[in-house]
Amino acid sequence: MKAEIIAVGTELLLGQIVNTNAQFLSQRLATLGIDVYFQTVVGDNAARLREAIRVASGRADLVLFTGGLGPTQDDLTKETLADLLGRKIDIHGPSMAKIEALFASRGMPMVESNRKQAFMLEGSEPLPNETGLAIGDALTVEHTHYMLLPGPPREMRPMFDGPGVQWLTPRLDVRRPIYSRLLRFAGIGESNLEAALLELIDGQSDPTIAPYAKEGEVALRISTKADDEAEALARIDRTVDAIKERVGEFIYAQDDIAIEEAVVRLLRNSMRTMAAAESLSGGLLAELTTSIPGSSSEFLGSVVVYTNAMKHKLLGIPMAQLEGAGAPGAVSESTAIMMAERIRDIAGSDFGVALTGVAGPSESEGKPVGLVYLAIAQSGHQTEVFTLHLEGGRESIRLRAVKAAFYRLWLALKG
Amino acid sequence: MKAEIIAVGTELLLGQIVNTNAQFLSQRLATLGIDVYFQTVVGDNAARLREAIRVASGRADLVLFTGGLGPTQDDLTKETLADLLGRKIDIHGPSMAKIEALFASRGMPMVESNRKQAFMLEGSEPLPNETGLAIGDALTVEHTHYMLLPGPPREMRPMFDGPGVQWLTPRLDVRRPIYSRLLRFAGIGESNLEAALLELIDGQSDPTIAPYAKEGEVALRISTKADDEAEALARIDRTVDAIKERVGEFIYAQDDIAIEEAVVRLLRNSMRTMAAAESLSGGLLAELTTSIPGSSSEFLGSVVVYTNAMKHKLLGIPMAQLEGAGAPGAVSESTAIMMAERIRDIAGSDFGVALTGVAGPSESEGKPVGLVYLAIAQSGHQTEVFTLHLEGGRESIRLRAVKAAFYRLWLALKG
Repeated sequence: MKAEIIAVGTELLLGQIVNTNAQFLSQRLATLGIDVYFQTVVGDNAARLREAIRVASGRADLVLFTGGLGPTQDDLTKETLADLLGRKIDIHGPSMAKIEALFASRGMPMVESNRKQAFMLEGSEPLPNETGLAIGDALTVEHTHYMLLPGPPREMRPMFDGPGVQWLTPRLDVRRPIYSRLLRFAGIGESNLEAALLELIDGQSDPTIAPYAKEGEVALRISTKADDEAEALARIDRTVDAIKERVGEFIYAQDDIAIEEAVVRLLRNSMRTMAAAESLSGGLLAELTTSIPGSSSEFLGSVVVYTNAMKHKLLGIPMAQLEGAGAPGAVSESTAIMMAERIRDIAGSDFGVALTGVAGPSESEGKPVGLVYLAIAQSGHQTEVFTLHLEGGRESIRLRAVKAAFYRLWLALKG
Repeated sequence: MKAEIIAVGTELLLGQIVNTNAQFLSQRLATLGIDVYFQTVVGDNAARLREAIRVASGRADLVLFTGGLGPTQDDLTKETLADLLGRKIDIHGPSMAKIEALFASRGMPMVESNRKQAFMLEGSEPLPNETGLAIGDALTVEHTHYMLLPGPPREMRPMFDGPGVQWLTPRLDVRRPIYSRLLRFAGIGESNLEAALLELIDGQSDPTIAPYAKEGEVALRISTKADDEAEALARIDRTVDAIKERVGEFIYAQDDIAIEEAVVRLLRNSMRTMAAAESLSGGLLAELTTSIPGSSSEFLGSVVVYTNAMKHKLLGIPMAQLEGAGAPGAVSESTAIMMAERIRDIAGSDFGVALTGVAGPSESEGKPVGLVYLAIAQSGHQTEVFTLHLEGGRESIRLRAVKAAFYRLWLALKG
């Protein structure tokens, strides 16, 4: 089945928002074994939308729309498609009742245009909207399937994943789904990973091996199409084994989780805890960790000690260590070690992790941008310290430093 | 002038990456007064790329391509366009020399396919690539302009902004640029802002007033097209004045900076400093602040005191305040006040800001998800405390809480 995604909205053509809906739907359709051949973006303009539908209907079996289902005059998707297909517009009763009830409960008069959100094409199947008001719609006309989804991602995504997929499934002509597995890497950069696997990536076309960058990390997706699931999985396993032979020590997960989540899971499973002292990373390590729900059991807290005075006051690091002639300075191995050990002792955690370095844009203490010291203190072990030389801008250096810290924690937890 | 952007790359159709190039070019073209009517995405496939070019040539005066200029067999943009237009492929001498020199300097044998990066269409104008190897290309055939740009954003963006715009400028039929101004708001949500301005937004079409959401904040773009710059700016001024009459107290900037940056600027200008104590926000406030280069002069540091024990150890808050029958608890007005005052005293800063609350997913201390206490301690002033009831998921609650803190700091700094 060949699909085309049409995103409707002038805000996309003005560059005010980026078309994440196309990305989401493309990923989902790939999983269903549907090939997306084109993505189109068109504005809130009936004539040009009509033209886009005409082109898409001529080259796709499935046309998915996002956007243009709302209550305003600019929302034209249902009306334009109905006009082009020669269908009337019906009102979906349950959706209309829901809209009326909402306005009544708020004590607001209902504006006529809100009725539009209950529109459906004659003979179509409504797709319920669990997270918004505008109903979706699906129908088949002359062997072409049309599916109309709302524009806001928090409405579009659950509608597609629920009623959308349910409507599509029996209509898939050949069910030859794509099977894929994601390998997530830490402690290795994208170019080194590609160099290590070059022969493997170039030498095989099935399964495909697609590298792509995740924020501060790297991932590989191994994909194959097959009628038979067992056959597909066996093929993927063989490719994964070949990758493991070359770079296995850097694979921390076979599903889509970030390294910080892998660390929190290992802490949880081993009933251990961590705390952090951050200088150059300025709270990013804490922020990534605490964004994982429930992490407060494993992550006891952190200090962002951006200035020397704060390193002294909160962690008790002697000023003579940090400043003055001959002092190692804030950016040094010995300061990193002290920070990690002090925060571990203060928090009473199993691990203390510390980052100090120069994120830029300019050097500090005569030390170059990108120089970072990372220390991991673990009760009952000697504190480890690592020197990193990171490239890129300020944000990139901070993120890579934090990801390196999680990778070292992960290795320590794996034991 | 009507433009269409064609992004070439199977990775877009698989949803592996999102089409930020289309967003970037759309924004730039709007500034030049060029209307983008369609954005298209097509895979690395000659037949379908040909079809996309054919459709675009029929409806646009300017067709911009991103992607498909690289050295691999999948890179087909130049060859396909040349074939369709009946042009030969030339080699651009200086680019070829650059590629050869690079391989020589690395002591690597040059693969034949690398020559492709120096390809140009017969009779076209090369667009130099300052940040990569693949040269861009521009030409006009039968009143249609074509511009070929590389896919990687760090190559595409400088190429468009430099040689791309230089090539386009004399070809713009009517130079009627869009003038616009961005107003950034804090302390007010998107729906309340729209409600306050409904009459204004609906009642006028020039300048247009387009609301859009920024991470945890709201912005309005006021835009107008005009031949005369002074006239355009006067029109925009009148609209801005009308907006200020209604919601002026929430406008913190007339350019594209986040509220945290506005706060750091005010601190810098008044030679004042801040420090933070974060519970539910888990380091996000520190992270946003320290991501601003040079903020270490204004932001002295913070503590992420996720657990009660850390609130006690790092800030000296009595355990009897936090736990036990009748204790106010960690999520309370009085704890927020103590946190803000203690971190201000420890850091010796002018401001201490504290956030404590329930980010979810489940309630805490019997207090509901979304309840947040925000305290601002300022030397010489009584500490202010605010109770917030925030909606949304965990990440959204954390972000809104932090943005609210910056808004209150901003108000305090404005005096």
